[in-house]
Amino acid sequence: MTKINDLPVRDELRGQSPYGAPQLDVPVQLNTNENPYPLPEELVARIAERVAEAARHLNRYPDRDAVELREGLAAYLSRTTGFAVARENVWAANGSNEVLQQLLQTFGGPGRTALGFEPSYSMHALISRGTGTGWISGPRGDDFTIDVDAAVAAIAEHRPHVVFVCSPNNPTGTAVEADTVLRLYEAAQAARPSLVVVDEAYVEFSHRASLLSLIEGRPRLVVSRTMSKAFGAAGLRLGYLAADPAVVDAVQLVRLPYHLSAVTQATALACLEHTDTLLGYVGRLKDERDRLVEALRGLGLEVTDSDANFVQFGRFADTHAVWRAILDHGVLVRDNGVPGWLRVTAGTPAENDAFLAAVATVIKEL
Amino acid sequence: MTKINDLPVRDELRGQSPYGAPQLDVPVQLNTNENPYPLPEELVARIAERVAEAARHLNRYPDRDAVELREGLAAYLSRTTGFAVARENVWAANGSNEVLQQLLQTFGGPGRTALGFEPSYSMHALISRGTGTGWISGPRGDDFTIDVDAAVAAIAEHRPHVVFVCSPNNPTGTAVEADTVLRLYEAAQAARPSLVVVDEAYVEFSHRASLLSLIEGRPRLVVSRTMSKAFGAAGLRLGYLAADPAVVDAVQLVRLPYHLSAVTQATALACLEHTDTLLGYVGRLKDERDRLVEALRGLGLEVTDSDANFVQFGRFADTHAVWRAILDHGVLVRDNGVPGWLRVTAGTPAENDAFLAAVATVIKEL
Repeated sequence: MTKINDLPVRDELRGQSPYGAPQLDVPVQLNTNENPYPLPEELVARIAERVAEAARHLNRYPDRDAVELREGLAAYLSRTTGFAVARENVWAANGSNEVLQQLLQTFGGPGRTALGFEPSYSMHALISRGTGTGWISGPRGDDFTIDVDAAVAAIAEHRPHVVFVCSPNNPTGTAVEADTVLRLYEAAQAARPSLVVVDEAYVEFSHRASLLSLIEGRPRLVVSRTMSKAFGAAGLRLGYLAADPAVVDAVQLVRLPYHLSAVTQATALACLEHTDTLLGYVGRLKDERDRLVEALRGLGLEVTDSDANFVQFGRFADTHAVWRAILDHGVLVRDNGVPGWLRVTAGTPAENDAFLAAVATVIKEL
Repeated sequence: MTKINDLPVRDELRGQSPYGAPQLDVPVQLNTNENPYPLPEELVARIAERVAEAARHLNRYPDRDAVELREGLAAYLSRTTGFAVARENVWAANGSNEVLQQLLQTFGGPGRTALGFEPSYSMHALISRGTGTGWISGPRGDDFTIDVDAAVAAIAEHRPHVVFVCSPNNPTGTAVEADTVLRLYEAAQAARPSLVVVDEAYVEFSHRASLLSLIEGRPRLVVSRTMSKAFGAAGLRLGYLAADPAVVDAVQLVRLPYHLSAVTQATALACLEHTDTLLGYVGRLKDERDRLVEALRGLGLEVTDSDANFVQFGRFADTHAVWRAILDHGVLVRDNGVPGWLRVTAGTPAENDAFLAAVATVIKEL
């Protein structure tokens, strides 16, 4: 039987494994930061309706520029942040991963580098490598905040072409202040004209406002977003960015033509029609997130302050053993490879109860 | 206002334009090889039903490995080619463009090269460049067939890591014989262990059988396919490949996790349920394609033999002027940049009549 290593794959891929959390069939799945609330039946019906309309023209290619969808996303951003953006500021793709890949193909790539402050969303490094962009691991403080002076020094030393700032940060939950982003942007521009990408995948769950308005007057600052989390539509794979219109023009030089299917566009538009209902769940999840933080601290655990729909907790001498022990209680959390720490997604109240009960039992046995 | 060139985009992107045919609002659109027949209403209803089922779990990530869909595609390939393939032989992505991009990220990339026989599907070169893979333009005969000796010599000279063979070839319509592919595969392996990709996007329209069975015993031969053409689902963006299971394992090292949305998977599965109805249109389109070939020759034009749902015709001293003149009659065809030649998609009988009438008028005025 032929194996991967019998094929002429690129050297750097040899011995690698595909990225992705284990997909285990477990009663309580709190490992991939999904929204636990299914879409309301009214929205399901509206999706079926809009997709049927789209399917009647499915023999034709979709709108290559996704104009109506980008207008809808721009309206959503303008309304929820108070900062007016137009369709020309917005670009959409199959998940924020594809948005980030397009940005790296445009502004990174062979002979260029990208820097992020780790631990952070591991796809930043993986997509960098996948696009031939050199990856530089920048520093983060012991409390998982960004130490601005250390970060600025790293940027000055490495002069990256792309800088990632994840806020709230995955997997730690840590938000980044606007002042910090501004200093990082200035440091990055002082080193060379470079792109700064603020990944706001989880921003709707934050105690703090979006950093979207920072794109004003900063043509090399990009904010990326997703409908996977706050919109409860991980299965839809709809990511987007907001930036200067020139950035939107630039990524079109590398995007695959017709990358976004007509059914994806139709489904996303239906979800946008129900924004208020979907964001209603966000409030519940923030409350549950805060409850998890308190309860875990009540159990004597260390918990990183969280602005996301997940909570990082620890510290454990044998992280994997604790992960396994919680799983044995029917609850799947995430081991992101941060030594001593695990991550749990805020689920429904019942799911969170099950998780807290499991942890209480597990730590007694440590 | 900031322009693309004010941004730190990669040097090779400066001055480029996004790929894509002009999207003009014209009565008869025969420029992008779309299937002119809308999906039947029964299938539209089934899509709405399957998408609604998927939407009820849209808060969860989709099946990352698209198992059910790959089983359906494998069954379709097995049934229509008589060569048995299993789910493990099949991989799917957002259009065959994304399939090809994943193959190039795995087997091409920086420091490696890909070769195709031009003129051919221009995305082969564009995706190669987009993934940092060097592009080599291989030779094609004056009649647009592949001259095997010249092709073998080009492979021996350039020793590419990836070889593209498009059959039927876009934009010429030319099919490639199995013997030719076998000689190219042997030549490619003699030069170095390299991947040979047979792009069969249009094979359902061919007079000849699929080359799928050539993957047997050839772990570095890949056949790529799409649901955009024969299935009449360009808006769905569903491409796939069949190959040795090791190739399927290998592309998973570079695919973005959860790249294929739950709504795309659901819609594709609904289309596969209606395969026989959809392939019924293929017979009509083959007849219309043959009629176009005959009629254009009857008008005294040169026409390349076609195994696809489109026809290349010429030759014109001023190709763009003829393209424009046909457009002035309300018919949009494609200028693919092959000097002297234009390409027309086989549409409905009425669309083809309109096209033929336009051409008859235009060439009288030349």
